[in-house]
Amino acid sequence: MMNPELTRYLKESEESILSLYQNKPPFPLSPKELHEGSFVYFERGGKRLRPAICRLTAGICGGDEAEKAADPCALALELYHNWTLIHDDMIDHDDLRRGKKAVHKLISDRFTERYGKKTADEYGTDVALLAGDALHSASVSYLAQLSDSGFVPPAVSLKIISLLEGHFGPRLISGETLDTRNGLLYGAGAFYRLEKEEILEMMWGKTAALFGISALSGALIGLRDPDESAPLAAALTRFAEHCGIAFQLQDDILGITSTKETLGKPIGSDIREGKPTLLLLSSYRNASPAEQEFLRSTVGISKEEDEICRAMEIVRRRGGIEETRRVAAEFLSKAEEDLALVPDSHRKKLLQSWQGFMVDRNL
Amino acid sequence: MMNPELTRYLKESEESILSLYQNKPPFPLSPKELHEGSFVYFERGGKRLRPAICRLTAGICGGDEAEKAADPCALALELYHNWTLIHDDMIDHDDLRRGKKAVHKLISDRFTERYGKKTADEYGTDVALLAGDALHSASVSYLAQLSDSGFVPPAVSLKIISLLEGHFGPRLISGETLDTRNGLLYGAGAFYRLEKEEILEMMWGKTAALFGISALSGALIGLRDPDESAPLAAALTRFAEHCGIAFQLQDDILGITSTKETLGKPIGSDIREGKPTLLLLSSYRNASPAEQEFLRSTVGISKEEDEICRAMEIVRRRGGIEETRRVAAEFLSKAEEDLALVPDSHRKKLLQSWQGFMVDRNL
Repeated sequence: MMNPELTRYLKESEESILSLYQNKPPFPLSPKELHEGSFVYFERGGKRLRPAICRLTAGICGGDEAEKAADPCALALELYHNWTLIHDDMIDHDDLRRGKKAVHKLISDRFTERYGKKTADEYGTDVALLAGDALHSASVSYLAQLSDSGFVPPAVSLKIISLLEGHFGPRLISGETLDTRNGLLYGAGAFYRLEKEEILEMMWGKTAALFGISALSGALIGLRDPDESAPLAAALTRFAEHCGIAFQLQDDILGITSTKETLGKPIGSDIREGKPTLLLLSSYRNASPAEQEFLRSTVGISKEEDEICRAMEIVRRRGGIEETRRVAAEFLSKAEEDLALVPDSHRKKLLQSWQGFMVDRNL
Repeated sequence: MMNPELTRYLKESEESILSLYQNKPPFPLSPKELHEGSFVYFERGGKRLRPAICRLTAGICGGDEAEKAADPCALALELYHNWTLIHDDMIDHDDLRRGKKAVHKLISDRFTERYGKKTADEYGTDVALLAGDALHSASVSYLAQLSDSGFVPPAVSLKIISLLEGHFGPRLISGETLDTRNGLLYGAGAFYRLEKEEILEMMWGKTAALFGISALSGALIGLRDPDESAPLAAALTRFAEHCGIAFQLQDDILGITSTKETLGKPIGSDIREGKPTLLLLSSYRNASPAEQEFLRSTVGISKEEDEICRAMEIVRRRGGIEETRRVAAEFLSKAEEDLALVPDSHRKKLLQSWQGFMVDRNL
């Protein structure tokens, strides 16, 4: 299903950042469960979408040498993404991450037999908290090495750190907090009070921000210039952000149309947890009064599997999937406009495949 | 009690970093409780010991201009210290920080009336987690601005970020994890199985590391050179680390000899929580078999105030305070040796006062 050129490129990105990680390993943390907790998501592998776009935009703006020089940044962005996942899984009480144990659960299970479930759970949570912190540090420490190869001017490395930690990171954390606030405080069936714009703003923070800084940092590396308002850098940033929103919308669709095996967790978990999505909101608005009443009293409230199934059925039937696809297509068409500024090249074609993959995937 | 020159200097450091914080405020976080949670400890004020030593070593190595140029770094180190406190308070379930509400408690109380205690507590914990993360980011973003004034070469700023996030920060987080592991897993009266060296190693991470990087970063700024092995930079780093250990030992003593009013929390909390300290270990080793038996069954286990009082009484009587003072004096004398390399100046005198204050304080 995935374009073979893109498949090859993602694999190449994966190998490139893995080899950097092995040759310049992060500072060894102790006790060893802290080290394991910090790096286990990274070591399990993944699609490496953020490293790929960072390396691609570096290559587009500066050629082969720039693409290679971007590796510490590409690795840093993947690790940055991973620390946010560790803390998100704690907040969401998600014991599974793509079918494998979440960090807090992994550590807890390790100590349950010897110390009992209560103590082990608390220790697992504490270690996950500190592992996320340590991974945040490790991520930034790779960024601080970005100029060591001599290609990237130190002023560019500092600008990337400043943009990540002073702008995109804080927006990401704000997005996660708003999401938590919606779920926990208004939670329990109150999704329908949100507006489409609030949901998109939250998605911008939670997903698009990190794609945006991935493309932007690659562009600055390639241009060897810290000016983030350079037209090409700005266009690539918007492109990645627009793709990021489309990616998240597709994620929401997969959450209700995929299978447990593919997702690595039960389908319908957004509905079970009352997570506000455009999907849910759109179907709710088109539902009959009786269906609306049912959704309000079920989403984020009911634990009964047959009720969750019926809620999913309503969401599927009332056009939320189609509306979400339509909005995703809107963002993808904006992303295409952003690409107008980018000169034709084999890397631009990869970027277009990357864009297509963001919505045509099943995982 | 504090040397008036040092008092003036600490006040000047406070004003200097506060004015930077006001003139270049951090990225505004939303919702507003996330912003408040992130910066409330900083805004409550404090002794600002880390900013002071950073500015002082910058001045020692590079004069007035260097001292001023160090401000973004001094501010960043104070914020870095603060994010570790937010997460520590969560882990330790400490609802009070110096007599005022800890972040998780502050946010929880704000939402209790409207959403009930259980939901508010969970939201308070989630916000504290994310506030610590956002503050970590804000701290690094100030470091990334360090070269903006033109005085500090970008390579020096990158080296400081690399040392903080790739070495000192990870050791700090490892220290906190070891401390948590000792308390939670071996906790409940198992302090006596530790060796003095293990306790000192933990203290190095939890306290000395951040003092060390504060002095080191100031020195690199003053020298305008990223070489952390330069003799003066290395001597100032060791000096601050040795003072940091003495500081923590004094903290442990105050925890049992001070008053609730001065500490802002009940005295004896280390004993109540079973925190392994040199103080406790030394007294334990000198105690009678009956007293040892009593300590083993009380420290970190008993909730009875009369038993905690009796345990404190044993610790006070069995020489732990004297032994801790003796070890602190050893570290201070090492710190004095480190100062031999530093040329005489009014700033060196301030550094000596700073050193004296680290142990002659009552808070």
